[in-house]
Amino acid sequence: MTGSRDFDQWSPQGPVEELSEESAWELLGLESFGRLAVSDDTGPQIFPVDYYADGTDILFRTAAGTKLRDLVAHENVAFEVDLRNRDESWSIVLNGVARVVTEPGEIAAADRAPLPTWIPVAPYVYVKIAPLSLHGRRFVHTLFARRERTSR
Amino acid sequence: MTGSRDFDQWSPQGPVEELSEESAWELLGLESFGRLAVSDDTGPQIFPVDYYADGTDILFRTAAGTKLRDLVAHENVAFEVDLRNRDESWSIVLNGVARVVTEPGEIAAADRAPLPTWIPVAPYVYVKIAPLSLHGRRFVHTLFARRERTSR
Repeated sequence: MTGSRDFDQWSPQGPVEELSEESAWELLGLESFGRLAVSDDTGPQIFPVDYYADGTDILFRTAAGTKLRDLVAHENVAFEVDLRNRDESWSIVLNGVARVVTEPGEIAAADRAPLPTWIPVAPYVYVKIAPLSLHGRRFVHTLFARRERTSR
Repeated sequence: MTGSRDFDQWSPQGPVEELSEESAWELLGLESFGRLAVSDDTGPQIFPVDYYADGTDILFRTAAGTKLRDLVAHENVAFEVDLRNRDESWSIVLNGVARVVTEPGEIAAADRAPLPTWIPVAPYVYVKIAPLSLHGRRFVHTLFARRERTSR
């Protein structure tokens, strides 16, 4: 979240603006679809998920399938949301710890969250990701006519 | 890639169509922006990347930063591309092995790939992901008025 510039803060399209945590949560609150990464013994897995961000945690539902099993066995997760349009792009990556919501009051609160409807046939649980770190980046699209490789 | 139905093949919006590998590569070829997941000792990380899919491998560039270091240390990766619009959604997840492209002829071929321009200041390398598995899913959006939790 510093203003320092190194190669990791440049995109192919230009310099990157690091977002404050407040701005990152604000953008997370505007979207509802992200990607969850979990690790199993063979490496990382990615799952698209509908989510709700309340400014503190990420909430989503998951069916009683592979994704959940991975989560429970390996609770460190990464979660990514991005948007690209003609003028700008942003991407937010949250690293955190996932847990299944089991407390009845917390489940009742999750029931009121604006998540998509769920088809009745599929059993599910709520999962919350508590953030350990949050990094947001935004860049304005610019045109670079040059296409040049300076080093490798 | 089978037609079997279990809970893992249902989305919140309805039943999911499993795509053939051919259809998955076709969709990968239509897009140019995806998310790369790598694992390090603390868990998974996600990085948005511009890519090119030639029907055999995924090609992208990366700067000499964190992402590359993770890749080299942990070559098993997952790569995800998705699209959501009003009528349908699809998501493709490729699991594979990443490697830095070092052979001059292969670099020359990569130079001709339709990747975005790269700002001259940032040193980069090409990385290729050779797929071990490829899973694509598509679903048509339907409306479910009911919001019901049948099990947990």
